[in-house]
Amino acid sequence: MPGQPREDPAVRVAVLGCGNVGAALVEMLADPDRAPELALRAGVGLEVVGISTLEPDVVPSAAPWFPTHLFTADAKGLVERDDVDVIVELIGGIEPAKSLIEAALSAGRPVVTANKALLASHGGSLADLAAANGVDLFYEAAVAGAIPIIRPLRESLAAERISRVMGIVNGTTNYILTSMTEEGREYDEALAEAQRLGLAERDPSADVEGKDAAAKAAILASLAFGCDVSIDDVHCEGITAVRRLDVAFAERLGYAVKLLAVAELVDGGPDLSVRVHPAMVAKSHPLAVVRGAFNAVFIEGEAAGELMLYGRGAGGPPAASAVLGDVVVAARHLRSGAAVPPPSRRVPVRIRPLEDLTSVFYVSIDVLDRPGVLASVAAVFGEHGVSIRSMEQLGLGDEARLVFITHMARGGAVTKTIEDLGRLDVVDRVGGVLRVVGPEDEG
Amino acid sequence: MPGQPREDPAVRVAVLGCGNVGAALVEMLADPDRAPELALRAGVGLEVVGISTLEPDVVPSAAPWFPTHLFTADAKGLVERDDVDVIVELIGGIEPAKSLIEAALSAGRPVVTANKALLASHGGSLADLAAANGVDLFYEAAVAGAIPIIRPLRESLAAERISRVMGIVNGTTNYILTSMTEEGREYDEALAEAQRLGLAERDPSADVEGKDAAAKAAILASLAFGCDVSIDDVHCEGITAVRRLDVAFAERLGYAVKLLAVAELVDGGPDLSVRVHPAMVAKSHPLAVVRGAFNAVFIEGEAAGELMLYGRGAGGPPAASAVLGDVVVAARHLRSGAAVPPPSRRVPVRIRPLEDLTSVFYVSIDVLDRPGVLASVAAVFGEHGVSIRSMEQLGLGDEARLVFITHMARGGAVTKTIEDLGRLDVVDRVGGVLRVVGPEDEG
Repeated sequence: MPGQPREDPAVRVAVLGCGNVGAALVEMLADPDRAPELALRAGVGLEVVGISTLEPDVVPSAAPWFPTHLFTADAKGLVERDDVDVIVELIGGIEPAKSLIEAALSAGRPVVTANKALLASHGGSLADLAAANGVDLFYEAAVAGAIPIIRPLRESLAAERISRVMGIVNGTTNYILTSMTEEGREYDEALAEAQRLGLAERDPSADVEGKDAAAKAAILASLAFGCDVSIDDVHCEGITAVRRLDVAFAERLGYAVKLLAVAELVDGGPDLSVRVHPAMVAKSHPLAVVRGAFNAVFIEGEAAGELMLYGRGAGGPPAASAVLGDVVVAARHLRSGAAVPPPSRRVPVRIRPLEDLTSVFYVSIDVLDRPGVLASVAAVFGEHGVSIRSMEQLGLGDEARLVFITHMARGGAVTKTIEDLGRLDVVDRVGGVLRVVGPEDEG
Repeated sequence: MPGQPREDPAVRVAVLGCGNVGAALVEMLADPDRAPELALRAGVGLEVVGISTLEPDVVPSAAPWFPTHLFTADAKGLVERDDVDVIVELIGGIEPAKSLIEAALSAGRPVVTANKALLASHGGSLADLAAANGVDLFYEAAVAGAIPIIRPLRESLAAERISRVMGIVNGTTNYILTSMTEEGREYDEALAEAQRLGLAERDPSADVEGKDAAAKAAILASLAFGCDVSIDDVHCEGITAVRRLDVAFAERLGYAVKLLAVAELVDGGPDLSVRVHPAMVAKSHPLAVVRGAFNAVFIEGEAAGELMLYGRGAGGPPAASAVLGDVVVAARHLRSGAAVPPPSRRVPVRIRPLEDLTSVFYVSIDVLDRPGVLASVAAVFGEHGVSIRSMEQLGLGDEARLVFITHMARGGAVTKTIEDLGRLDVVDRVGGVLRVVGPEDEG
């Protein structure tokens, strides 16, 4: 029963899904060496009582004490059992995860999940359901692995007027971009290497097209600004159009190319912009030095100033550590009979389309090597009122490109410029478009 | 708040102490423009009902609505009032802060404090008193200003096996060291400049001798390792012996000189080392790039890997933001009638003296310019079994120094070496001793 103090019996945990994160979690929970330490931290023992998996015959651990006898294919049955206190959902995706979490919350059981896709589309209604049933819904692992970001936004920064949250929240794309920068690889090579190292999926689209980062952007925006932002509200560009030349050019100018998830107040609010896109980040900015598969979230607030939270964003053990931290807190609450504070009331949100926002842009264009080309290209920029700060011709042989840095320009005007440029005979291909972040982004 | 429809009465806040942080907090709490937003976040309105200050006639704010009519010199009377729900203690120091907090907790009132000195000496007994009375004791602002560090350690990382916490937690000394590095200033000049800018006190000893950082080290150690570490357990060296030449030499070798607060397991635990001392930090380490008055805490854990939390460590508004975040969470708990989870049970602690720990050391010595000096100095190192990796003569004219980098050596042996070196006729003065952190610290 929620709200009833329990005497010393252990808090019983059911784990739904036993992939990388699930297996690492069960190893931490079921390891007899760790049990006394965990009990000390939670104020009560923790016990795994069931693990649902699609393949109950496959044991994902070499540990002799790994509790294979607790495997079941029946996730629904596990959630409905009377002898379960906390449900951990690590299946991912919308269904059946959503129905299982709803069943658990409705039955008064706290839920810990790492399911960013689900939270980014149904986070608001799930939070309401948890509040209505007076139980915890925790999801520290859903954004940036073991980096504490959800709880700081919900609690430590509860009183802060946040103006912008900007993060490198996808390790795969950051690894690829770092490899393109430091090893001089082309995108395809860098992707293939990431796949070889297990840092990218065989079908990498969710990462490289920015969808994974967009789900995290929606979750961060909802928390930072106290509203319901869905993944459908997030403008999303990936890194597939970024070429080695763009990265090298940025490097030479003192920038690092990063895939950013950004949620910010527009013109001081209340409208928001929530977006994912590659950007040129000035090297003096703390995000520029976040290399490889690391993640970081940079927060700007009125009183707090600039904050950055940095660490490993992916991998079974870091995510399992974040999940287990949530389980420990949920267990403390159960043990002390603490009713759970309702989430802050939320405000409606209005998302400003990216076309309305101004930025400094980097635009690269492949052109035919013919006299008068620059004049026709520059004319198109001029027609849309996009003022050019600098232009340079880059590259060797068939990789030749014109690259432009604009003055501050409206996103919509740049989009139209690029559409029109694509129609010019002399233009072979419009390549990367990068927003510029850093000391120059006011320029 | 007239015109605000509210079903619940406001949570009433008393603020003890109205210096920089107190004034910034009252400005955030009492600003009529902010009230609806704060009420939304807390789930209930917040109202300042009293402010204690030693000088009730001095108004620390230009805002016309600043509630000077709430000032009182009687802090004790304020804590005893029936119509106060949350007590914020910003007086600092041990007494009267300790008695006031104890009175509040014993009366069942949650307390928010930023008092690092008090927490570093009586944190354990205050936590027990809060738990016994079922009320919150929060202190996010006590370490590293607005950087969320206390709650992440208490909750997000509750299940993590932390091996080391290492932080730049004093903005004054980091500003001085950054200025010595980047502007080539001597220590005295850099300190004077920090005093001019209001970044150092007229009596800077608490900062430059490392006492402020030591209090924070004790708090971080207690949280990270679930035990009671007092400031008296913390070995403490400040930055007063660091000279421009040391910093320049470190810079040339690829290191930044930083004052570090370190809490770590020795040889895998359970013994701890908790200490504050200047160190040469390899530039590839994320802490090396933390400049000026910024703070950062670097955490290493078994599953989570490396984490860093970075931001502004000092100043009224960042600290007030952290305090107000705590007040919002305490108000949420009060409103929902949530009993407060007891703190994790704590384990006894054994602190290993610094003499027992090994490290690579940088030692600088002023010597007379005479033949045979190096031989006598090197002999002293040899007598204590401290093996020298490299030696160099630095400097111009009267600033000439011998600087040594050792192989891994026991702290105690280096201490004895330095004592004996001080007795040599040819040694003018033993200057800085820095521990080396980074890729070389295993060497």
